[in-house]
Amino acid sequence: MQSNLTTRVPVIRIRGDSVKQDHDKVVSEVPVTVFLNNQEFVTMVCSPFAIDALVAGFLLVEGIVENREDLVNIKVLPGEGLVWVETAQSRPAESLFLKRCLASCCGRGRSTFYFMNDAGLKPVDSGFTVTSVQIKVLNERRESLGSVFKSTGGTHGAGLCTAQEILYFHEDIGRHNAVDKALGSAFLEGISFNDKAVILSGRISSEMIVKVARAGIPLIISRSAPTGLALNMAESLNITTVGFVRQDRLNIYTHPERIVIDN
Amino acid sequence: MQSNLTTRVPVIRIRGDSVKQDHDKVVSEVPVTVFLNNQEFVTMVCSPFAIDALVAGFLLVEGIVENREDLVNIKVLPGEGLVWVETAQSRPAESLFLKRCLASCCGRGRSTFYFMNDAGLKPVDSGFTVTSVQIKVLNERRESLGSVFKSTGGTHGAGLCTAQEILYFHEDIGRHNAVDKALGSAFLEGISFNDKAVILSGRISSEMIVKVARAGIPLIISRSAPTGLALNMAESLNITTVGFVRQDRLNIYTHPERIVIDN
Repeated sequence: MQSNLTTRVPVIRIRGDSVKQDHDKVVSEVPVTVFLNNQEFVTMVCSPFAIDALVAGFLLVEGIVENREDLVNIKVLPGEGLVWVETAQSRPAESLFLKRCLASCCGRGRSTFYFMNDAGLKPVDSGFTVTSVQIKVLNERRESLGSVFKSTGGTHGAGLCTAQEILYFHEDIGRHNAVDKALGSAFLEGISFNDKAVILSGRISSEMIVKVARAGIPLIISRSAPTGLALNMAESLNITTVGFVRQDRLNIYTHPERIVIDN
Repeated sequence: MQSNLTTRVPVIRIRGDSVKQDHDKVVSEVPVTVFLNNQEFVTMVCSPFAIDALVAGFLLVEGIVENREDLVNIKVLPGEGLVWVETAQSRPAESLFLKRCLASCCGRGRSTFYFMNDAGLKPVDSGFTVTSVQIKVLNERRESLGSVFKSTGGTHGAGLCTAQEILYFHEDIGRHNAVDKALGSAFLEGISFNDKAVILSGRISSEMIVKVARAGIPLIISRSAPTGLALNMAESLNITTVGFVRQDRLNIYTHPERIVIDN
């Protein structure tokens, strides 16, 4: 398990006319599995610091513990990505949590690292290319399409695009939902994915790479930052990642062979 | 179910020396429950538009459907918050999904509206107050504490604070995780919650109100936007919400009686 706060990764920085091979710091992202009273309970993907606080807070906000005394022991094995928790009693909330989970909260993200071993996830095979100028134009278009964001500041936006235009664009309070909507619109119309890119406002975490890989999309473009785990996965899954697209700037992190630099 | 894109809410806007009673548009947030082949499958909280695309995309990225033909029928009853989906076959992925869910993705959010009926969630009883100038100072402090954000741009930050200072501050790639860490640190040390506030960089969605209510915290402060559902819940649960805190500006949405305006 990566235990540093940040991970050093190679990057190609484009700033106006300047193109520079460099290194960048990205935030680390790791899976942590919690065992509650000797039973596997939940796995979260998180930044690898203050893991005891994360797990204690999670148990509190989920109603598993109420008072400090309810939490008898919490032991973090950071090198292993494991946390052992002992509570004073098996509260009814624990069964409630699992029930609620099945009924409601699933699928909004936290299962990333399982997917790498999943037969359904294979490297994306695609000769798709896009130019750096096209990326800037697509990003301006994404910004102009975000009408709910403009009136409320409360949404993320995501689109599915060719090199020339955004075909489907959606907004949602959840960055996962915005991407799912863009992919879902294309899926409902039977559109091919391996000659398209996803463009979004939110960060590129490992779950985003899972979505893109699952659909078979070769390129993900964001105005925000990627995480270290996302870049590891994108590298393995033959996915091009472009981050921090803003005005005349962008960073290429993985598989730069799909980006033609033409500014 | 609220089916408009945005919701109109009362707000007190503070801009430098100016204090104005006004209305604001916030993004709507609704629960949607998906039935898959006549079985209740998952509930998501989302923005109430393009729900067919959201569900189709979700099924795609979760590996429940692979080709357009796999999705035989999708029927949205928006007024009811229900979606019926029929797939060509009961794929193994469906059982995998539930298994994965139990093991991993739970608890990162999507169970909000169940909580309102949950015996564990009651209105916060607290005489805590804070001044508008203190909020601005706390927000500057939050920004200065975000060291991983400064070096990577990839984290959210959240703190638990008194009116005077941030006692616990954490960063994480997930905005949920950052809040859980801040609450967890305090919980581990047995600190009282009902004379504290949560201050965060990320948006105030309904799940954030659940966390704050669960801990019994009377005030949530964010540099970002709230959602309509979050404000409904905060109103019922006697929680003060302050959004869009930036430089000398802030918006008070619910229970303004806890904010002393002194600028």
